[in-house]
Amino acid sequence: MLELYDLAGAEEDRRFSPFCWRIRLALAHKGLPVTTIPWHCTEKERIARSGQGRVPVLVDDGFWIADSWAIANHLEDEYPERPSLFGGPLGRALSRFYNNWTDAVLHPGLIRFVLVDILRHIHEKDREYFRRSREERFRQTLEAVVAGREQRLAAFREGLAPLRLTLEAQPFLAGSAPLYADYIVFGAFQWVRCISDFPVLAADDPIASWRGRMLDLFDGLAGKAKGYPV
Amino acid sequence: MLELYDLAGAEEDRRFSPFCWRIRLALAHKGLPVTTIPWHCTEKERIARSGQGRVPVLVDDGFWIADSWAIANHLEDEYPERPSLFGGPLGRALSRFYNNWTDAVLHPGLIRFVLVDILRHIHEKDREYFRRSREERFRQTLEAVVAGREQRLAAFREGLAPLRLTLEAQPFLAGSAPLYADYIVFGAFQWVRCISDFPVLAADDPIASWRGRMLDLFDGLAGKAKGYPV
Repeated sequence: MLELYDLAGAEEDRRFSPFCWRIRLALAHKGLPVTTIPWHCTEKERIARSGQGRVPVLVDDGFWIADSWAIANHLEDEYPERPSLFGGPLGRALSRFYNNWTDAVLHPGLIRFVLVDILRHIHEKDREYFRRSREERFRQTLEAVVAGREQRLAAFREGLAPLRLTLEAQPFLAGSAPLYADYIVFGAFQWVRCISDFPVLAADDPIASWRGRMLDLFDGLAGKAKGYPV
Repeated sequence: MLELYDLAGAEEDRRFSPFCWRIRLALAHKGLPVTTIPWHCTEKERIARSGQGRVPVLVDDGFWIADSWAIANHLEDEYPERPSLFGGPLGRALSRFYNNWTDAVLHPGLIRFVLVDILRHIHEKDREYFRRSREERFRQTLEAVVAGREQRLAAFREGLAPLRLTLEAQPFLAGSAPLYADYIVFGAFQWVRCISDFPVLAADDPIASWRGRMLDLFDGLAGKAKGYPV
């Protein structure tokens, strides 16, 4: 039995963690049914058995495991008879850069557009913790971080050139069909979609077309999730 | 018979094109002997049969082909019995983002450190063309583009986080052994090494360790090439 602690907003069906979305899609890719457990970011004790305080946390038949990359590798290794997330050892190695680029470049770029939108959607009991921890990290108020986002949009979009050029040339990052590299990057855009109507992508961007294909996967798993239209 | 038009400096054995280095290493990976033909960037007529004016240009038994990505794909498809550059269709698809990231992010970052160093090393007959074409592109003098490079170094190095985190976790981008994804990214650092002593990487950077492993490949093909010590 698989259970996934999944970040939820004030509404329990608003699931907006980019890291959790990687795993939701990875589980669907492998055809593994999962029970998602809504979790709020101050509920550290509920996931203490994972040895840390962030989600996703997967409980696989009593075995607790944290960190999206570790969970994806666990699923790949423990369920080898299911469709592969990486397409083999080489694909696994080559996917790591996508993971690090998304964490180190894409997320930090996106958060400066949506930080206040996150605050608006999280559970009331999480708000003070969220504001304090993020304002310490940014050394600015949340509002100051987001201020002037319209003026920063063009430069941000230009920074997505490597992604755009790739998705102009092929339907998915992994080629003709999506693999975990796609789920990593898509999680970032799904995060935004779930908590913000800010148009981080232009409608005619090839990245937006790919996002549309990703939203449709697995009978619309991501597309039907509570969020804003794109 | 394989011939490669290869960008040369004022000294014919200083070969510094990052795109040509991708192909030099790809040819070595496949164990294919090649004759390199030194070429200077104003000698457009010498490569006119390729249909364009830049190198690398590969002549494979009378067939002319330009563009490093196209050449790598040509080698992979025409010499399938040789060691694979991509490790299969999935690896080929996943390598495209590395190519686009290197072209759109890594090269533009590096060139602002070494533009004047390039000028110092190219053939005298190329200098006026080089200065004019680059100053049009940057809308600044070459000297102004490079000015203050020491102050920009820390931010540039920080921007390499996705690469650094990946190479902290595994010896090569492709895992335990290098593939074309490694040659793409390494070409950028080899370009710098061949024309500049500016320390774009700190000595203790995991990226520098990987660069060292790359310099040693194929009996030191890249490491023995004329350039500056790193």
